[in-house]
Amino acid sequence: MADIQRMAEAIRFLALDAILNAGEGHQGVPLGMAEIAATLYARHLRADPADPLWPDRDRVVLSNGHGSMLLYTLLHLSGYAHMPLQALRDFRRLGSVCAGHPEIEQAAGIEITTGLLGQGIACAVGMAVAEARLADRFPGLVDHRTWAFVGDGCLQEGVGQEAISLAGHLRLGKLTFLWDDNAITDDGATDLSVSEDIPARFVAAGWHVQAVDGHDIAQIDAAMTAAKADPRPSLIACRTVIARGIPRLQGQRGGHSAPLTAQDAAEARAARGWTHPPFEVPQEVLADWRALQNRGGAERAEWAARHATHPERAEFDRWQAGLLPEGWEAPLSDLPQGTPQPTIAASADACAALDRTLPELMVLCADLEAPTDHKRHRRAFSAENRGGSYVHCGVREHLMGAMCCGIAAHGGLRSVNVTYLAFADYERPAMRMAALMGLPVLFVFSHDSIGIGSNGPTHQPVEALAAYRSMPNMQVMRPADAVETHEAWALAMPHRSGPVMLALSRQAALPVRAPAQSPLSAPGGYVLQDPGARDVTLIATGTEVGLAMEASRQLAGQGLRAAVVSLPCWERFETLTETERAAILGSAPRIAIEAALRFGWDRWLRPGDAFIGMEGFGASARAEVLYRHFGITAERITETATALMAAQGGGRRV
Amino acid sequence: MADIQRMAEAIRFLALDAILNAGEGHQGVPLGMAEIAATLYARHLRADPADPLWPDRDRVVLSNGHGSMLLYTLLHLSGYAHMPLQALRDFRRLGSVCAGHPEIEQAAGIEITTGLLGQGIACAVGMAVAEARLADRFPGLVDHRTWAFVGDGCLQEGVGQEAISLAGHLRLGKLTFLWDDNAITDDGATDLSVSEDIPARFVAAGWHVQAVDGHDIAQIDAAMTAAKADPRPSLIACRTVIARGIPRLQGQRGGHSAPLTAQDAAEARAARGWTHPPFEVPQEVLADWRALQNRGGAERAEWAARHATHPERAEFDRWQAGLLPEGWEAPLSDLPQGTPQPTIAASADACAALDRTLPELMVLCADLEAPTDHKRHRRAFSAENRGGSYVHCGVREHLMGAMCCGIAAHGGLRSVNVTYLAFADYERPAMRMAALMGLPVLFVFSHDSIGIGSNGPTHQPVEALAAYRSMPNMQVMRPADAVETHEAWALAMPHRSGPVMLALSRQAALPVRAPAQSPLSAPGGYVLQDPGARDVTLIATGTEVGLAMEASRQLAGQGLRAAVVSLPCWERFETLTETERAAILGSAPRIAIEAALRFGWDRWLRPGDAFIGMEGFGASARAEVLYRHFGITAERITETATALMAAQGGGRRV
Repeated sequence: MADIQRMAEAIRFLALDAILNAGEGHQGVPLGMAEIAATLYARHLRADPADPLWPDRDRVVLSNGHGSMLLYTLLHLSGYAHMPLQALRDFRRLGSVCAGHPEIEQAAGIEITTGLLGQGIACAVGMAVAEARLADRFPGLVDHRTWAFVGDGCLQEGVGQEAISLAGHLRLGKLTFLWDDNAITDDGATDLSVSEDIPARFVAAGWHVQAVDGHDIAQIDAAMTAAKADPRPSLIACRTVIARGIPRLQGQRGGHSAPLTAQDAAEARAARGWTHPPFEVPQEVLADWRALQNRGGAERAEWAARHATHPERAEFDRWQAGLLPEGWEAPLSDLPQGTPQPTIAASADACAALDRTLPELMVLCADLEAPTDHKRHRRAFSAENRGGSYVHCGVREHLMGAMCCGIAAHGGLRSVNVTYLAFADYERPAMRMAALMGLPVLFVFSHDSIGIGSNGPTHQPVEALAAYRSMPNMQVMRPADAVETHEAWALAMPHRSGPVMLALSRQAALPVRAPAQSPLSAPGGYVLQDPGARDVTLIATGTEVGLAMEASRQLAGQGLRAAVVSLPCWERFETLTETERAAILGSAPRIAIEAALRFGWDRWLRPGDAFIGMEGFGASARAEVLYRHFGITAERITETATALMAAQGGGRRV
Repeated sequence: MADIQRMAEAIRFLALDAILNAGEGHQGVPLGMAEIAATLYARHLRADPADPLWPDRDRVVLSNGHGSMLLYTLLHLSGYAHMPLQALRDFRRLGSVCAGHPEIEQAAGIEITTGLLGQGIACAVGMAVAEARLADRFPGLVDHRTWAFVGDGCLQEGVGQEAISLAGHLRLGKLTFLWDDNAITDDGATDLSVSEDIPARFVAAGWHVQAVDGHDIAQIDAAMTAAKADPRPSLIACRTVIARGIPRLQGQRGGHSAPLTAQDAAEARAARGWTHPPFEVPQEVLADWRALQNRGGAERAEWAARHATHPERAEFDRWQAGLLPEGWEAPLSDLPQGTPQPTIAASADACAALDRTLPELMVLCADLEAPTDHKRHRRAFSAENRGGSYVHCGVREHLMGAMCCGIAAHGGLRSVNVTYLAFADYERPAMRMAALMGLPVLFVFSHDSIGIGSNGPTHQPVEALAAYRSMPNMQVMRPADAVETHEAWALAMPHRSGPVMLALSRQAALPVRAPAQSPLSAPGGYVLQDPGARDVTLIATGTEVGLAMEASRQLAGQGLRAAVVSLPCWERFETLTETERAAILGSAPRIAIEAALRFGWDRWLRPGDAFIGMEGFGASARAEVLYRHFGITAERITETATALMAAQGGGRRV
């Protein structure tokens, strides 16, 4: 039998040594949760450190990510090759896999980036959803659990509360939260800001709840066994002492992250009876840790045998690899494109059509089924039906975004997030995580401008395009019409190094062009209307491209040659060479048109060029009234173009 | 006795008529909550429609803001002069006070902008906190309640959950939620996405919970009476039928906002026995409604009598008016400024010092007391101590931001929101509400760049400055040192037409200049280092101004004249004339330096100018290592300047 207590001490002292060595870090979690973690790894976890990417492994999420040393020591002690002792010695140094907070590195066993509180448990809900749907689709190949280490902060955050609520509703029985109930946050005692009965809160949401002494291995072990047997998601409330083992800090506010001293390390060694030098773990303790490899290796071998002969093996492997099947985009070519329609409707067509070739899509929507229409024939994923490919997330946008990250990080499914653009800010932290982790999540946002009409300024994005264009590794696409919307889907699906966001219209968009053999949107911008020599270049995105086209016709009536450039994706356009961009944007005077703020547009404008768009928040009135009120019309473009050319001496032709 | 049922029918039919007249709207709430609202106004509300700005009025928040017609009919029927019948007829038309969602207009009785779900109840928590503190400070002048109409969506949103948790903890006994428990959301039955025991969830958080038939006036009345008597915040769960009264839609998903027809109106009139033409309310029903004026008028007269002789009257009036007292900024002049220090520390100094002259400050912080240090001698506002000026919000940033809005909208206190810049996105929707409403909230954000060091990219803002600069009516200030930080406070306090956000450093900032008689930061940008004729202009913000100053010294050593422009606030700088800006920015080659992304900087740069900053997310290492790694150093600035001048033919002097 493994000596789990000694295994726990190994966590405790490796973490302490690494934090002391780094000069800073958060000892509270690894020292306080050592027994919980050791028990999980020794007795319950399904994982094989020799194959960190084994699809049927349990997923472990350190939602209290500041306690990163807990995860690193676990991975090192269990024998993950990419987590050598040197990595622990390099904790918090540039390039080390042991970053201050866990940064996704699945080859090293780090399943997901965490650290912003609440994100981890919300992602864990997504992972558990992914497991349930994949288990339904591929019985025999998918049967694993999701375990999350959870701090008080995660449970205070709204996104964490959303996670509790929906996980209970969906009855995600393979999800277990291990709550580090240490009664201390950064400010001091939790009762400075929390007095709620947290177990009762979980019970209200339909969870299975147990409370244990978080340093009593037998209690922890029994609770984990019971959690696995219960059909509900489980909370194990583990009463712990923060920074347990350091006499000066344990149970204190300073236990969280106060700087450690060599004396702390010495006193802790004395207190816990740990006689080994820094960074040293005795062989017999290491051997207990490495037992996971034996158990996990055997489980993986069984799985591999089933997998080898599974009739759905090829399809399973394709889903896992995120590969698109031959001809996957064919359904996009049959969709209606020729008449005015909202671009959100064109997106809904694409989403529905792609179900034929991409059954791995998993569509999440935050209580806007009717106006976004991305459900259609899809069945709801629910407690009763795990085969559904549509999740009614309720009015919980933040959770939805994080679940999409969790689904993407889990692998096997392609997550699509659907709501209004005005609500994107509710899930912005999760979108940033998708961008930071480089996860292929598709964020579909409808109602992208004042074009929503009279619901008013709360629901009218004016700064959202700028705010998301400013986010690294986020591709923002604002297609002009149905053709460009279908191109956006065609471009988004193969893009796997980060998220893509579509900004789509509620109001009908005029068709601006015919479909092309290969997507004209691919470079992010292109000349849609080319008059040869140019008097002026109109640059627009989304529904305003139709206005630019109309203005170009008006200008042609005056004998003026206006090129129209559609610029649906700035991030793609940035990847062109300066020469390529210059060829598209031209050297004639430029007018940019977008029903949003100018912020960011100076990237594409020169002194003397013009911008037509919003100058502040919107208002409540019908869309066409608002467009006129704010001066975003073809007539205004035409007037601005003639004024610009007059100011520049009749226009220079290029 | 008032006929409250008939009062409710008046709501029902005015709302129905207005929505039908507008061609769109959300009838579910006004028709479903008519009895609840009528009972509140007839029996319990403390308000005088003749003086909508009476400081001691009850605050009413329509958190389910899509049901805006409920609020408009209430205000019209109670006799608010700025809510005439014509406004209801103009529902959803440009310029009408009856916007699609309520937009703050306190003279008309609209206390706060709502519509993004969850914001309203979170603001309501702030209002209740403001009331409690003001009641403690000004006994006899402040004793009112906060009532919030609440939909299912508000309770699903994370920010709503945070509100429940903290309101219970703070024991805000004068706060009552009227929950429209209609079991319907936009997607259909709430059980598509909710199966939690919502009353039990409130009980777990320490609330007083009652359940009533939301169409039974006696039950509602009794519950409101009990709520007022209980020391805990109260939830009244009102079981309702959505869109009650329209036979085709009541109790159905379509009840939420399906388009109404003339036949619906006729059938509803028949079903409810309402025989009056559209927009007509019989005199006797109106008389019942106007009874509020009598009750409220009498209450206000009593209050006015107390106020007239209150010893603290002048101070109370000053707080209410948001006026700064003579000499309020004097304490800022004594603060340490001459040595390197984090700008967050300089802000903490300012916040502490201003307590002497601005006791109306109310500082909220999300579990980061130690690293932001904005508490110091302030006492905590708590269930036991209502006099505290510091709220431990727990790890609930979104709630904190919305509470700051609620406090500001309530009036009487000046709210200050403190956390890290990386967590700003958690509260971005609330920040947008502050900007949209034009509320004077000060958002203080520390840890504003890679300068935080090894906590890594999750905690390192790189796009936040751009994302908040893009928000209308949000002033983003990134001061260079302690002097500029104190100037930022000095400029922020008198700015009452919108929020101000400070982006402050964890790491020490080098002092870049001496204090000035009047704040040099006032125009948003100024020449900090003026060499007369210029070879190059270095434009920087925050901690990078110190780097620019160092580079200018290095360049001077090479005989090159570098001007340094500090640009702490772009929004202020935008208000200068183009000539004024040109005089500051100069015509020499420009290099912008900011430890953030370039996005947005092209506003101040011309083709050929340079930018030194971040190109993507950060990394985990010590701050000085990261600055070198990402090439944000004085040496790099110097090299870039010389290269730029070489490229431009030895530099043009201006």
